[in-house]
Amino acid sequence: MNNWTLAKRASTMNPSVIREILKVTEKPGIISLAGGLPSPKTFPIEAFKSAANKVLLQDGASSLQYAASEGYAPLREFIAQQLPWDVSPDQVLITTGSQQGLDLVGKIMLDEGSRLLVETPTYLGALQAFSPQQPEVVGVDSDEHGMIPADLERKVGTGAQKARLIYLLPNFQNPTGRTMDDVRRQAVVERLAQLGVPFLEDNPYGDLWYDEEPAAPLTARNPEGGLYLGSFSKVLAPGLRLGYIVAPKAIYPKLLQAKQAADLHTPSFNQRMVAEVIKDGFLDRHVPTIRAMYKKQRNAMLAALEQHFAGLDVQWTRPIGGMFLWIRMPQGIDTVKMLPAAVERNVAYVPGSAFYAANPDHRTMRLSYVTASEEQIHIAIKALADTVRATLAQQ
Amino acid sequence: MNNWTLAKRASTMNPSVIREILKVTEKPGIISLAGGLPSPKTFPIEAFKSAANKVLLQDGASSLQYAASEGYAPLREFIAQQLPWDVSPDQVLITTGSQQGLDLVGKIMLDEGSRLLVETPTYLGALQAFSPQQPEVVGVDSDEHGMIPADLERKVGTGAQKARLIYLLPNFQNPTGRTMDDVRRQAVVERLAQLGVPFLEDNPYGDLWYDEEPAAPLTARNPEGGLYLGSFSKVLAPGLRLGYIVAPKAIYPKLLQAKQAADLHTPSFNQRMVAEVIKDGFLDRHVPTIRAMYKKQRNAMLAALEQHFAGLDVQWTRPIGGMFLWIRMPQGIDTVKMLPAAVERNVAYVPGSAFYAANPDHRTMRLSYVTASEEQIHIAIKALADTVRATLAQQ
Repeated sequence: MNNWTLAKRASTMNPSVIREILKVTEKPGIISLAGGLPSPKTFPIEAFKSAANKVLLQDGASSLQYAASEGYAPLREFIAQQLPWDVSPDQVLITTGSQQGLDLVGKIMLDEGSRLLVETPTYLGALQAFSPQQPEVVGVDSDEHGMIPADLERKVGTGAQKARLIYLLPNFQNPTGRTMDDVRRQAVVERLAQLGVPFLEDNPYGDLWYDEEPAAPLTARNPEGGLYLGSFSKVLAPGLRLGYIVAPKAIYPKLLQAKQAADLHTPSFNQRMVAEVIKDGFLDRHVPTIRAMYKKQRNAMLAALEQHFAGLDVQWTRPIGGMFLWIRMPQGIDTVKMLPAAVERNVAYVPGSAFYAANPDHRTMRLSYVTASEEQIHIAIKALADTVRATLAQQ
Repeated sequence: MNNWTLAKRASTMNPSVIREILKVTEKPGIISLAGGLPSPKTFPIEAFKSAANKVLLQDGASSLQYAASEGYAPLREFIAQQLPWDVSPDQVLITTGSQQGLDLVGKIMLDEGSRLLVETPTYLGALQAFSPQQPEVVGVDSDEHGMIPADLERKVGTGAQKARLIYLLPNFQNPTGRTMDDVRRQAVVERLAQLGVPFLEDNPYGDLWYDEEPAAPLTARNPEGGLYLGSFSKVLAPGLRLGYIVAPKAIYPKLLQAKQAADLHTPSFNQRMVAEVIKDGFLDRHVPTIRAMYKKQRNAMLAALEQHFAGLDVQWTRPIGGMFLWIRMPQGIDTVKMLPAAVERNVAYVPGSAFYAANPDHRTMRLSYVTASEEQIHIAIKALADTVRATLAQQ
């Protein structure tokens, strides 16, 4: 292939660590706490079947034809209406999953070397989506309430190095499961407005709260100050790839042009099918059933951790929603190195180091409690604790 | 919005000319020859209905779940098998329409300022898809058989300015409708191999031939020398957004990583639905019906042009397949300026200037013969000729 000169950025595109790990964990019998796969029990297959038939019967030609890059109007209206601040459908751009939202925002906001602030740790897929633009990614220190405003101020930079964008996942963050509280949200939004840095608020899990609804989104507090990403992946089905961006009207046209260049539009059929499923309050009935199920599984994981990790120097988060929980293992454990031993014992996780922009904490790992059943969770957490004890004993 | 600093590339993202024109042409009663919309009569709605039901019944959970970025294995196998050269399914990457293929190839192949060779004129959507990477786009002279090898050699450049990639649409090109003949294909492929420039072969219309099958693809002649883009948009339905890239094995991993970062994967449900529709030779029965229909419409347009433009100094292409035909109007006509007068007479087209990397020929226009019926085509071409005559008479 000596005739091919690739773009410089291609050398920074590396296989996803999670992806490579998931390949290892495809052995039969393993209980994977690694992936972020919603439980297929939550997929409303019958509702999709009726919707597919109805859409093809009543609107077959349009659902199979090229369509506007903005997205299907009734779906944009539904989204604008259900968001808890004043949003016009003109501000809603339908994307091919909210992952595409990250790609489009990177394209219009980031030059090579532009400073991008992220939480510590942060969502790996966002780091990958932004990497083609080769930004300077700077992690901001975070505690259990989210990003720390004082460190944000230290990292924001000045002049040409002033941060272009800050990426935040306030609800049940991937990977840590933590949630920004109301006070912290307000402090961060106000500080960003003073500093003049727009935010990108990513909220794929917001509806999956188990105890009480989280505080209002950042974007609701300053709609002109940032961009908001939402998704149907966690409340309906990820395999349809349906997400959206909400943008200030002055920014929207650039995102729209990036969208059009990227894939013309999100599949018309999928947009209509989802609009058909949700139109009569379906989500108000459906989402509580998902919450109830995942809450039990979260509780099962917390109980299993209490039981099986007793006596070990281990900390974990207690997420009030979402899909993930974050663990810090005892001194002497490197979760990358320990993974093969865990897979031997039929349990898989994602090592935490993949989620850091720099200076990873090698003792951390991410566990998902949504894919495995309560019983499987207990078995897997016991296997994980056994792995940790065996690893420590060998030292 | 004074807090927002956008990426430099955002200033080069402009609304699609075609898109803006199509908005103007949405007035009732207009016959649009502008868009590249396949006739909805060709959409196999019943087949999709059965397939949707079957997929949701037999494979509901998987069809709605996250999936591998490479695409659905049976679909990749089908594609590899039906291509007329030796392709492994491992070389096939499913994309969200072939437009996404352009975005991904741009990401891995083009740096800012990289030289990109294109035909004169070329597909506007490709120019848009590559524009985020800010390449130096250089048009190569072309005649009725396609790109001229001698001019290709003149434009290829040396050293850091040597072309990274050449973008070619050999079959029934968008916008001109022209087809590279066998001799020209062989000459261009050999010249590119000597020059050491990889090609990107875009073939969305290849199955839509009306007289005889076109010559073998460029990629079939040198599979290690380029990338190939294909699509289901023109033979099944564009609204499902299903395309694919075929890449040499050494290049594939970079495209895969770009795909994963862009939208994780193409919708699982759509891939399974299409795989279900096509699995038993459906396309062998279905595509000939599309060919027969579009051939009649092409013939109608050619006949209408002969009739209504008689006596005017007008040239047009005689496409042997695809969806478009290219016209050069008489001296004194600027097709951008004439468009409002044409819309007044209830006919719309796309001015040709949008399709040039530089130095547009303002006398040109693109007409589509696939969306309008034979009768509508006759009415529209008469209206267009009337517009031209009226415009010339005013001068």
